[in-house]
Amino acid sequence: MHVFAVPDLPEFTNGDAIAATIEDSSDIRDDDVVCIASTIVSKVEGRAADLSSFDPSTRADRISQRLTSIHGDVVDPRFIQAIIEDSTELITEVPFILSLTEFGHIGVNAGIDRSNTGSNDLLLLPKDPSRSAAQIREAFSADPAVIVTDTSGRPFRTAQRGVAIGWAGIPATRDWRGEIDRDGHELEVTVESVIDELSAAANLVTGEGNDGFPVAVIRDFEFGEHDSTDTLYRAESNDIVRSALKEWNYEEENGE
Amino acid sequence: MHVFAVPDLPEFTNGDAIAATIEDSSDIRDDDVVCIASTIVSKVEGRAADLSSFDPSTRADRISQRLTSIHGDVVDPRFIQAIIEDSTELITEVPFILSLTEFGHIGVNAGIDRSNTGSNDLLLLPKDPSRSAAQIREAFSADPAVIVTDTSGRPFRTAQRGVAIGWAGIPATRDWRGEIDRDGHELEVTVESVIDELSAAANLVTGEGNDGFPVAVIRDFEFGEHDSTDTLYRAESNDIVRSALKEWNYEEENGE
Repeated sequence: MHVFAVPDLPEFTNGDAIAATIEDSSDIRDDDVVCIASTIVSKVEGRAADLSSFDPSTRADRISQRLTSIHGDVVDPRFIQAIIEDSTELITEVPFILSLTEFGHIGVNAGIDRSNTGSNDLLLLPKDPSRSAAQIREAFSADPAVIVTDTSGRPFRTAQRGVAIGWAGIPATRDWRGEIDRDGHELEVTVESVIDELSAAANLVTGEGNDGFPVAVIRDFEFGEHDSTDTLYRAESNDIVRSALKEWNYEEENGE
Repeated sequence: MHVFAVPDLPEFTNGDAIAATIEDSSDIRDDDVVCIASTIVSKVEGRAADLSSFDPSTRADRISQRLTSIHGDVVDPRFIQAIIEDSTELITEVPFILSLTEFGHIGVNAGIDRSNTGSNDLLLLPKDPSRSAAQIREAFSADPAVIVTDTSGRPFRTAQRGVAIGWAGIPATRDWRGEIDRDGHELEVTVESVIDELSAAANLVTGEGNDGFPVAVIRDFEFGEHDSTDTLYRAESNDIVRSALKEWNYEEENGE
């Protein structure tokens, strides 16, 4: 399996053709997996926004006050309003906002980016990243799979890693259940999140800074003969962390 | 960056020389990252065990009863005793046991494997996987980095992905903070868990079943010029999910 960043991509702006621009810089083949940073998908889809266009609700003001009293720094209530408007539910409000997007992703600040935003203040996630992936995939002259990637933190472990938020032309998971291991035992738990692992591999070659490459290609990945599913996000009923976080009260536990 | 599974590895057992066996099957180069499944490290380190050698405590019996009343199936209290003995703390007891190992990893059932265990019932994680990684690394004639990998589930997202539990010859994270993005903004949050991303990439080529390959090599990964840290596991004070889970009571929330 070979993983490489697509070289020489220009800055993308609203309305640009992502697939054609990638094919100008790199020969894309059938069965390649093209991993595209959500930031450029957002830019092309006009998801840059300005803080000044958000009018904070009472709720946004209240969350801003909670965050400010915990962290000291003033948190702009217009930013919080942008998060509320781009979320279907806030899982936590403090010590940071973890929210559920309409397409099912749970992320800090609804995944809204305050860097990499061009002349605007904010860059919102694509509205429906799997639809974006399908549209970009259609536009390639070759027949690759497409994954829209983001980076995300996680509990128990520090730092961030690449994750998928949208995908087309490849299943989300590969199912090893029922298969027999080398000792003849049936494998216990083994549904593998292939698209997240591909996104992590892509993030190793794309970088995030000044000379960042927002697109990586994974070539000669073999999915193999396996059952698969297209499920990336857990159902709430099967997510004890989500349940526990919703019940939890930060100030109560921290004596504030 | 090139990722490939090492072919033709034999079954490993207690006392086998992992590095020499890998070098018999594949040419390993300086600067390769050799990702080794924790199962074979455990086997070589004599971490296979039998259920019959565990004598359930009152606590193990009580947890077994809680799990059985939730899931219906009887959970062997000797298995729970093995988890307790291999953990420094249980974060949750139900609906599944999430525990902290001595080396800092938080995983389901203390990462104890009931498949891939040869003639024994259980395979415990290595006692100190970073020490294992350092010892294996020393034994190579070339000078690669070594990562001991496992697979793990996560909240919010279904399925499992490869993660690192031990490492040597490579930092845990790559730090992009303070760097400037393409629009001249300082990057907000960007410490990257390089060893977890490498473990995820490795898991894409190793497979888990009958023809599983327990070792993958990542060649031509460029770490680049970045600050780095050797921290993989979150401090408890900085882990709201751990705090929330410890406060949470499954039966209370589920009316049982």
